[in-house]
Amino acid sequence: MIDKRFLTGEKVVINVGKLNIGGDNPPVFIAGPCSVESRDQIIETALALKEIGIDILRGGAFKPRTSPYAFQGLGEKGLKYLKEAGDLAGIPVVTELMTENDIDVVLEYADIVQIGSRNMHNYSLLKAIGEIKKPILLKRGMSATINEWIMAAEYIAAYGNRNIILCERGIRTFESYTRNTLDLAAVPIVKKETGLPVIVDPSHGTGIRELIDPMSRAALACGADGLMIEVHLNPNEALSDGHQSITLEQYRDIYKLKLSYNKEVTSRH
Amino acid sequence: MIDKRFLTGEKVVINVGKLNIGGDNPPVFIAGPCSVESRDQIIETALALKEIGIDILRGGAFKPRTSPYAFQGLGEKGLKYLKEAGDLAGIPVVTELMTENDIDVVLEYADIVQIGSRNMHNYSLLKAIGEIKKPILLKRGMSATINEWIMAAEYIAAYGNRNIILCERGIRTFESYTRNTLDLAAVPIVKKETGLPVIVDPSHGTGIRELIDPMSRAALACGADGLMIEVHLNPNEALSDGHQSITLEQYRDIYKLKLSYNKEVTSRH
Amino acid sequence: MIDKRFLTGEKVVINVGKLNIGGDNPPVFIAGPCSVESRDQIIETALALKEIGIDILRGGAFKPRTSPYAFQGLGEKGLKYLKEAGDLAGIPVVTELMTENDIDVVLEYADIVQIGSRNMHNYSLLKAIGEIKKPILLKRGMSATINEWIMAAEYIAAYGNRNIILCERGIRTFESYTRNTLDLAAVPIVKKETGLPVIVDPSHGTGIRELIDPMSRAALACGADGLMIEVHLNPNEALSDGHQSITLEQYRDIYKLKLSYNKEVTSRH
Amino acid sequence: MIDKRFLTGEKVVINVGKLNIGGDNPPVFIAGPCSVESRDQIIETALALKEIGIDILRGGAFKPRTSPYAFQGLGEKGLKYLKEAGDLAGIPVVTELMTENDIDVVLEYADIVQIGSRNMHNYSLLKAIGEIKKPILLKRGMSATINEWIMAAEYIAAYGNRNIILCERGIRTFESYTRNTLDLAAVPIVKKETGLPVIVDPSHGTGIRELIDPMSRAALACGADGLMIEVHLNPNEALSDGHQSITLEQYRDIYKLKLSYNKEVTSRH
Repeated sequence: MIDKRFLTGEKVVINVGKLNIGGDNPPVFIAGPCSVESRDQIIETALALKEIGIDILRGGAFKPRTSPYAFQGLGEKGLKYLKEAGDLAGIPVVTELMTENDIDVVLEYADIVQIGSRNMHNYSLLKAIGEIKKPILLKRGMSATINEWIMAAEYIAAYGNRNIILCERGIRTFESYTRNTLDLAAVPIVKKETGLPVIVDPSHGTGIRELIDPMSRAALACGADGLMIEVHLNPNEALSDGHQSITLEQYRDIYKLKLSYNKEVTSRH
Repeated sequence: MIDKRFLTGEKVVINVGKLNIGGDNPPVFIAGPCSVESRDQIIETALALKEIGIDILRGGAFKPRTSPYAFQGLGEKGLKYLKEAGDLAGIPVVTELMTENDIDVVLEYADIVQIGSRNMHNYSLLKAIGEIKKPILLKRGMSATINEWIMAAEYIAAYGNRNIILCERGIRTFESYTRNTLDLAAVPIVKKETGLPVIVDPSHGTGIRELIDPMSRAALACGADGLMIEVHLNPNEALSDGHQSITLEQYRDIYKLKLSYNKEVTSRH
Repeated sequence: MIDKRFLTGEKVVINVGKLNIGGDNPPVFIAGPCSVESRDQIIETALALKEIGIDILRGGAFKPRTSPYAFQGLGEKGLKYLKEAGDLAGIPVVTELMTENDIDVVLEYADIVQIGSRNMHNYSLLKAIGEIKKPILLKRGMSATINEWIMAAEYIAAYGNRNIILCERGIRTFESYTRNTLDLAAVPIVKKETGLPVIVDPSHGTGIRELIDPMSRAALACGADGLMIEVHLNPNEALSDGHQSITLEQYRDIYKLKLSYNKEVTSRH
Repeated sequence: MIDKRFLTGEKVVINVGKLNIGGDNPPVFIAGPCSVESRDQIIETALALKEIGIDILRGGAFKPRTSPYAFQGLGEKGLKYLKEAGDLAGIPVVTELMTENDIDVVLEYADIVQIGSRNMHNYSLLKAIGEIKKPILLKRGMSATINEWIMAAEYIAAYGNRNIILCERGIRTFESYTRNTLDLAAVPIVKKETGLPVIVDPSHGTGIRELIDPMSRAALACGADGLMIEVHLNPNEALSDGHQSITLEQYRDIYKLKLSYNKEVTSRH
């Protein structure tokens, strides 16, 4: 029914520098602010996260915002700061690409290229990043079926790039208590259907700071290959998504899961 | 915003015989067939589950079916068989009540009275079971918001019965790969909002046999106080819900979670 | 695919006194307050509506409310007032039945028995009203698929009562601007699939007073056999659903549609 | 709550050559195949539609498809054929733009530039078309809230282009009988909130050929400023969306609505 020619279910491990994602490897921890807000902010955040433990630094420079009057990100300046912060901390960085026109500049700074939820159905963009080599982090569209999400990954693969990490980030439902409904059942499903690593973003998936910890536990328990979490030095002053960002202290608790899961994941396979 | 007068968030532990549900107690395992199909079937199932490990036996005698031409359950005969099976195995039983008119007969046989998803908005029924003493297992309506679910519990509490166990069983969304979308974020939310124990039904929550194991792990990881799982001696011959029922062997693997979580739950609190 | 044995698609006309609903008959106008609030209120409303033009008077006596602390209706007293108002105005009345236990009392006063959205999946209730003779107004469950709605009607028919009027009243979606999403495509679909008359409730279907007029026009344009509209003498003081109730003056404008559609409906068939 | 600085609700009339869309003008009829399949096909279709009555010809050259292995459109060749067909019939043409990189080529051939449902959240594209002068047909995202849809239009307006026609095309819900759930209540809402003309696409909005006629009637009845309908010379052989395309004969019946609504629309204002 799902016409997959490249993503057949055979296990794929993605390499980012020395880091291996997927397969029997321990879960990766991706953390950082929603937006790069300043050079100081992202460097301070990166170094603090490095001290706690982190695999990949996240930070948005081009921000897709519902309103044209909301903060739209620092653009290329943000990319430079992010890269500089990653270099200082010695960790790779991931950031969102919103348009084919920015591919070159994003590739110059990013180790992993993120396709956000609002662009999962943007087939022109999917074809374009199918022609590059760097790993892609493909978020599920906010109302994409599992089938459509898999086919979006198949687009990228069909155009030549099979370095794809999938990211479940919640879907849109009638429930309004949470920002989205985190669909954790999608994790074992798309792992099995595609063989690709699947990570979970509990920050967008719930929109509520207090739920990041329990949903991170749940995500890893059902087989997620990693987590992507919004962390802010001072969530209440964040320029975007502050209500769903956690503090460094809260992140420290969640990072403890990495150690306990290292062993368990190994024993499960 | 949610007008809770009885379910204030203070922790509630429900007692069913010697069993304690909620609070710091280990997760309860509720298992059994979707429907009681015969005396032999339910007795054989109960004894086999007892041998593996089980806290509460489930089995439907009155079945809410979309079609009037589908199997509607064995009725009171089913209740008798269920009770007999529970007695032989030495475990309490839970079964669904569909109408006020059956309260007396269901109370005669059941240790816990289940209100199914289709009746969560049936306020007459909620008031009626508010006036009994036995514990209630209140499933979330398939399209009920968290707020409406909490208020359904508040109905029961307001009419006098605070022995309520909540059960997340998936909500209706656009996704069609799974039968429902299991909303695990609801678990920590309703625990905090009401203080009641919350269990998870991954069988209805996914509708797919292979997902019961990973979603059971996820449910317990985010704090569920128990699991309700459809187990059938021969799922492919079940009169209802066979595709989402697991075998005894598959249940045996899931039950191992109980031992590992006993310790972890204790250490978390 | 839909196992319909009684509702085969052959056109059914429902008779309520001298009124004929469905088939080639002009659309019926059902109007009145959400709740019967007092004897004076319902009588004054009925007489005013009669003066403008109305086919059936609506008014709730048993109210399904999300909160146990909200106004629950006047009960049997409300039924008496409603019947008295209908008699004075010379029009039949429709009111909601919430539980089998109230069947006798509701049948004593009502000309049409309404099954509300929250009870569309209440199969015990559907079976019980299948055994009576009076016409049933079956609202679509707020998250019922068209298939499930049709099967709910088939329950009633299978138990002996084929005097069924279906009522589309909006479904639950992610959209929050409106209270529900009015699914007008369901009108031609269920008319064709069942042959039953289908009416539309734009009041619950939108939850916004200003939308009642355009959605009433749309409903009749796509073939609805009638409208059910909440009208209140003073919407801002209504005990329930005031924001979606219209004034008598607004109703007067909408009622003009009846005359224009009489001719058009006739010429279309 | 909705931060609209340009789309304030004041009525906007869009001019396309001699055609005026919105305000008190009669509804526009946009029709044509889902995809331009060949030169002959689009020319023959255009001339046949012209003979019946049509305001704007539609036809896709760049097609957003869920699968990379499905027909992706004829590209620039398709644009040329479309333009040639429009010129021969003497009617303007509308076609979809999927990426900023194609703006120049699409502008060369199209009179109206369509932004499809999958790109409504593509803010880079919205900004880019905000800087052109030609009218934009902005379809609602398949899971966009009304608020997000309005803000997408505000993006275009904020970047300089206020020639925007909105198009309701159905939203994604749990209902699976229809392809989407046509949300007609959105028509009067966005007309009032933005002042822009709003048209309705019953073809994508239902996905079922038989529903195009009743839903076209409903759309115009609630105030739509036009219709966009997929018409194919031979729907069963269409390369895409054949099941929701109607024949020329079926279109002829629907076009009769134009005459009857001309008068009615005038008299309503």
